[in-house]
Amino acid sequence: MARFYTPAPNESTKWRQFLFDVVFEHDTKRGKWYDVTLICIILLSVGVTLLDSIDGINTEYGNVLLQMEWVFTVLFTVEYVVRLMVVTHPLRFARSFYGVIDLLALLPMYLSLFFAGAHYLVVLRILRILRIFEILHMRRYTKETSVLLDSLYKSWRKIFVFLLAMLTIITIFGAIIFIIEGPENGFTSIPTGMYWALVSVSTVGYGDISPVTPLGQFFASVLILIGYGIIAVPTGIYTAELAASLQKRGDGRACGACGHSGHEHTAHFCMQCGEKLNA
Amino acid sequence: MARFYTPAPNESTKWRQFLFDVVFEHDTKRGKWYDVTLICIILLSVGVTLLDSIDGINTEYGNVLLQMEWVFTVLFTVEYVVRLMVVTHPLRFARSFYGVIDLLALLPMYLSLFFAGAHYLVVLRILRILRIFEILHMRRYTKETSVLLDSLYKSWRKIFVFLLAMLTIITIFGAIIFIIEGPENGFTSIPTGMYWALVSVSTVGYGDISPVTPLGQFFASVLILIGYGIIAVPTGIYTAELAASLQKRGDGRACGACGHSGHEHTAHFCMQCGEKLNA
Amino acid sequence: MARFYTPAPNESTKWRQFLFDVVFEHDTKRGKWYDVTLICIILLSVGVTLLDSIDGINTEYGNVLLQMEWVFTVLFTVEYVVRLMVVTHPLRFARSFYGVIDLLALLPMYLSLFFAGAHYLVVLRILRILRIFEILHMRRYTKETSVLLDSLYKSWRKIFVFLLAMLTIITIFGAIIFIIEGPENGFTSIPTGMYWALVSVSTVGYGDISPVTPLGQFFASVLILIGYGIIAVPTGIYTAELAASLQKRGDGRACGACGHSGHEHTAHFCMQCGEKLNA
Amino acid sequence: MARFYTPAPNESTKWRQFLFDVVFEHDTKRGKWYDVTLICIILLSVGVTLLDSIDGINTEYGNVLLQMEWVFTVLFTVEYVVRLMVVTHPLRFARSFYGVIDLLALLPMYLSLFFAGAHYLVVLRILRILRIFEILHMRRYTKETSVLLDSLYKSWRKIFVFLLAMLTIITIFGAIIFIIEGPENGFTSIPTGMYWALVSVSTVGYGDISPVTPLGQFFASVLILIGYGIIAVPTGIYTAELAASLQKRGDGRACGACGHSGHEHTAHFCMQCGEKLNA
Repeated sequence: MARFYTPAPNESTKWRQFLFDVVFEHDTKRGKWYDVTLICIILLSVGVTLLDSIDGINTEYGNVLLQMEWVFTVLFTVEYVVRLMVVTHPLRFARSFYGVIDLLALLPMYLSLFFAGAHYLVVLRILRILRIFEILHMRRYTKETSVLLDSLYKSWRKIFVFLLAMLTIITIFGAIIFIIEGPENGFTSIPTGMYWALVSVSTVGYGDISPVTPLGQFFASVLILIGYGIIAVPTGIYTAELAASLQKRGDGRACGACGHSGHEHTAHFCMQCGEKLNA
Repeated sequence: MARFYTPAPNESTKWRQFLFDVVFEHDTKRGKWYDVTLICIILLSVGVTLLDSIDGINTEYGNVLLQMEWVFTVLFTVEYVVRLMVVTHPLRFARSFYGVIDLLALLPMYLSLFFAGAHYLVVLRILRILRIFEILHMRRYTKETSVLLDSLYKSWRKIFVFLLAMLTIITIFGAIIFIIEGPENGFTSIPTGMYWALVSVSTVGYGDISPVTPLGQFFASVLILIGYGIIAVPTGIYTAELAASLQKRGDGRACGACGHSGHEHTAHFCMQCGEKLNA
Repeated sequence: MARFYTPAPNESTKWRQFLFDVVFEHDTKRGKWYDVTLICIILLSVGVTLLDSIDGINTEYGNVLLQMEWVFTVLFTVEYVVRLMVVTHPLRFARSFYGVIDLLALLPMYLSLFFAGAHYLVVLRILRILRIFEILHMRRYTKETSVLLDSLYKSWRKIFVFLLAMLTIITIFGAIIFIIEGPENGFTSIPTGMYWALVSVSTVGYGDISPVTPLGQFFASVLILIGYGIIAVPTGIYTAELAASLQKRGDGRACGACGHSGHEHTAHFCMQCGEKLNA
Repeated sequence: MARFYTPAPNESTKWRQFLFDVVFEHDTKRGKWYDVTLICIILLSVGVTLLDSIDGINTEYGNVLLQMEWVFTVLFTVEYVVRLMVVTHPLRFARSFYGVIDLLALLPMYLSLFFAGAHYLVVLRILRILRIFEILHMRRYTKETSVLLDSLYKSWRKIFVFLLAMLTIITIFGAIIFIIEGPENGFTSIPTGMYWALVSVSTVGYGDISPVTPLGQFFASVLILIGYGIIAVPTGIYTAELAASLQKRGDGRACGACGHSGHEHTAHFCMQCGEKLNA
């Protein structure tokens, strides 16, 4: 984690270096213990919120759970302040990905003092668990994530085109079904019709609203066929890009004699002319 | 946009050239401003229609929204006339892709004078937003679209075969379920049964109609298994074609001797004339 | 169609050859006319059955529609007899793919004399429309179909393994949900539970039966996650095989000089060493 | 099956060798007969349980079916004991994959003496049918299974990343929908909301619980769009890995000099030692 917050050597008091090691490092023994404890507390905190939302449990243990939640919040607040203190550039940390998440994990409880119900957003703490990738030393995982995201990034322009086409289809079919079926069959407005169209075209199909007139069912069929056709599109885009990414991972070296490239990682000789390959 | 409508140089009065620049060009400053304004008005117009369809809002603000819609319609009508006037071949524009869409965006309001409810079709204006690809100078987007459509085109014969098979399956299962379940369980006719079969095989599954007898549920299971198997088919077709398109696309290099392009990544010599390719 | 039924030259009376040309040939002018008429009658016949199944139409025009259906049936019966007569090996035709379908298209009406409701199975006639591939001279379509089926055939062993795994999962989850939810929540038996499990794991999700207890919803979530994971499997299997099939279509010729194979159809020179390729 | 349980030659009495041949061998004639009988009894036993769970059948034939189930259980118990006796390392068998399954197939009936309803878990016997792969001499099937599982194993790290992302999305949307819709619309707690979110994002969409407020429907739409986007991810991951596996599998040829196998189709020289490969 030295990337963002190298502690300035000239002003580093001992306890500050110690705290930095604990809260930011993942490789030292004390860093590991801290990380594991942190993840347990995060999960515990989210679990408490889930329990608190269940009616029967809420009425009986609501007070205890709320107190626990406040204890967690205080702990996380202290930790956030410590993190800000031990880095050389507090602002840089505050604006980093994990810095923002750490803040998001605190806010709901404080907001709940003003807005009832806001404390359920404490589940945003689950986002902190993404730190697990760094914690468990999962360089390989981060690499995997990067391959996945890389493919997503490469295909995002195609996906933008796709989403715009979807929006157009949904809007038009939402209006058509609203005209055909009307409020008496549950399609109370065009936005409701668009909601139904999205639910249909994505093959979710709740069935809370569904066409009852033959004409409406005909248009629903057309919409479903369209959806059936285009569900292949994002999968196809993504798979093709991912396959290309995976393929490229393989072939680096070209043969010095015949120039043939595309050898596997494990190859020692050119598969085209038999010349020795460079390692 | 010079492709379709080069203004004839001999009769070009200044204002006509000026209007052409505004409504058709996307690269000039005034062209850009016009485009952005246009998109905003399109979105506003569609938004107004959506709001108008909501019952509570309709009763209270219905009049205002209707008047706004008429203002937009007049604006679009004027624009359509201007577009027709400033091009050298008005008919050619009227029959072009964007020309038809522009007309479609006007008709619903005028039709609403004769048919109640028709004005909701104003949402067809959302189609005009597809012009965004040209507006935002998105040559790359259009290229992306063309790759997507290219793959669709290449696989359309396979998809036709697939759709014919689907139609056969749906018809037969629609009749079977109608015979087994009958009108008392909601399957009022074979077309209704076919609607249910399509909804099932596409994994949408509204559940508004569903088999209740054990035999009906058995046939539904068979149908679902078939659907489960063949949902792979369009995805597979499309993905395979797209992957092939992406692979072929990769080769930028053209041969210096004969100009043939479209070589594979690993090619060292032109496959057309045998000349060495540049790396 | 000379494949199956070459008319014996020694006994070929003129009218027999003539009839063969009409009903079996697709390339002659009279053969084409016959084919188009046939498809229209098939579609008409299926359409009549669909209309007949609609309650309102049935009560009013039921008699007319039934009479039309009998006319079609007599026509198809005559045609079937003619087909049997003009081929040299009637039994071989009767057992061929199209022969069986032609018979299936006749049976429902005759069965309806004994079993009420059987005449709705007349929709099986839609199967005859598959002949469209041969009729419209669609060698290319048949080729497309064969690529699709080829990939299906190649992956059938993998799909068998997959289906066996599905059956195991569905049986076990069907029993679990039956024990947890029981008849009072709609899961009246293990087979019903299995039906629900199939509907869930295939992401159809009618919602006619769904778990209401927290424990049942938990197991439903586990099942859905499993389904979410394995829906990728058939798609993956099929896509991978199809991509392989498409790839193989491409590369036939190897270079005589360096032996490099995998050239595109359009290549004239080896892309590896620049040597001329054989056509 | 000599892998696990070679009978010790010094103490092998004749009947022990005989029993081993019957219950473990699949290639001998008596082994085959035993296997086929076993599969039939397994299917029969599961079928009896399914029938027993149907209310009408249960009240009438419940006693007979229960007695049959006990007969099967005694048979399976005897078989399990025999299996343990004829192998040299009983414990090693008991802990093997098939050993655990054989035990699981016995337990439910004995547990049903203490817990009512447990005997429905007899369907776990369906797991024993997986032995079919070994029984029917399906080396090729096991190979197919191994390719499928291999691809799953290779992609498991990517899938873990994907599942963690899913969990995060589901938790957050579950809380949001609980806050927006609340218990009056069926979202009685955050876990219920998470259940709904999973059902939605996986495109199952039962519709037993679904948002009714416009804001809830908006968030549902966002969730569905996310689900629509990420359903491509597991399919993409798996397909890409499977395609890579299939590609690598294709190469049968081993090098004559060093024995290295796994060359690509297009390889002419061994990539390990540079020796020329046979075509």
